[in-house]
Amino acid sequence: MNREEMLEKIKQAMPEKRFQHTLGVEKTAILYAEIYGESTEKASVAALLHDYAKYYPDDQAEKLIRSEKMDPRLLEYSHALWHAPVGAYLAKHEFGVTDAEILEAIRVHTTGSAKMNKLDKILFLADYTEPGRDFPGVEEARVYSKTSLDAGMLFALRRTIAYISSKEQPIFPDTFESYNAFAFLKQEGDVKRFE
Amino acid sequence: MNREEMLEKIKQAMPEKRFQHTLGVEKTAILYAEIYGESTEKASVAALLHDYAKYYPDDQAEKLIRSEKMDPRLLEYSHALWHAPVGAYLAKHEFGVTDAEILEAIRVHTTGSAKMNKLDKILFLADYTEPGRDFPGVEEARVYSKTSLDAGMLFALRRTIAYISSKEQPIFPDTFESYNAFAFLKQEGDVKRFE
Repeated sequence: MNREEMLEKIKQAMPEKRFQHTLGVEKTAILYAEIYGESTEKASVAALLHDYAKYYPDDQAEKLIRSEKMDPRLLEYSHALWHAPVGAYLAKHEFGVTDAEILEAIRVHTTGSAKMNKLDKILFLADYTEPGRDFPGVEEARVYSKTSLDAGMLFALRRTIAYISSKEQPIFPDTFESYNAFAFLKQEGDVKRFE
Repeated sequence: MNREEMLEKIKQAMPEKRFQHTLGVEKTAILYAEIYGESTEKASVAALLHDYAKYYPDDQAEKLIRSEKMDPRLLEYSHALWHAPVGAYLAKHEFGVTDAEILEAIRVHTTGSAKMNKLDKILFLADYTEPGRDFPGVEEARVYSKTSLDAGMLFALRRTIAYISSKEQPIFPDTFESYNAFAFLKQEGDVKRFE
């Protein structure tokens, strides 16, 4: 599928606002890929497809989670998490994406994971900081993200945990494990903060 | 060991300020035990001994964690967590406490756990809200604790998670699991909030 066809299919699957977000994530993911020496091609495809399943019906998503043996804990937590692993599945089966790194980046773009590689972090942070995002701390997140992917991840994850816990909602274990992984990195002095 | 002897031994093991905190926790734990129909005797003993190991030397604590096959993950996280499981051990071996519920309440009083019973919650919240505590939100925590142990726990744990993550420090998995357990309870409508 060429880029034109891909864009058309994605555009059909979501409201205009979400499509504009998708383009913002792509632009930002390519920028981060350039900064950190990752494939801009992979960053682009992962970004374009990351929210493709955002409007996928819950009942069909639930069926896929079961039939494709995705993490069964997903069923106990917010349905808002489902579009990430389901999106990875659809990227493979509807768009023919076979690159395992692209699929994994899409799969973990909402929760993070205990072991994130460069592309995973780039997509996660591009989604968190694309130009259309507007929340307290987003400018700080942008500065961190351009300075150190690990510093950006630690910031984004601790803000995510603070936000979910302030609403007294359950936190998906992968988010917690991802946070701890970066907190340990920082503790060991491996997160290059700019300050 | 009678109460007098117990108090004397505890007093010797800590600075006066910590001893006063201990007495405050006991008073509060007895109050919560009365409110929620738990044994005030158990609440008292658990409270008196909860911080007994607070000034136990790190190297000896580490040896005990290894030799007594306590959770090995403790060694990777803040040493400030160690006094709880080590305290449970000393309660048994230095004070002759054999009641498994008292020992468990001491063991989980800092991190919480995925499955807390009434006495566990009472000690945790008495420690969090005793009269000597003074931090933003402590009054709210006191009101919650007197209204519903589960509401109190959810409040205390989410504030704990917010505090640790604001410092970008790793969160012990039991704390996270404990938080999630109460967040799920609330989601299922089982936490009786007063508002």
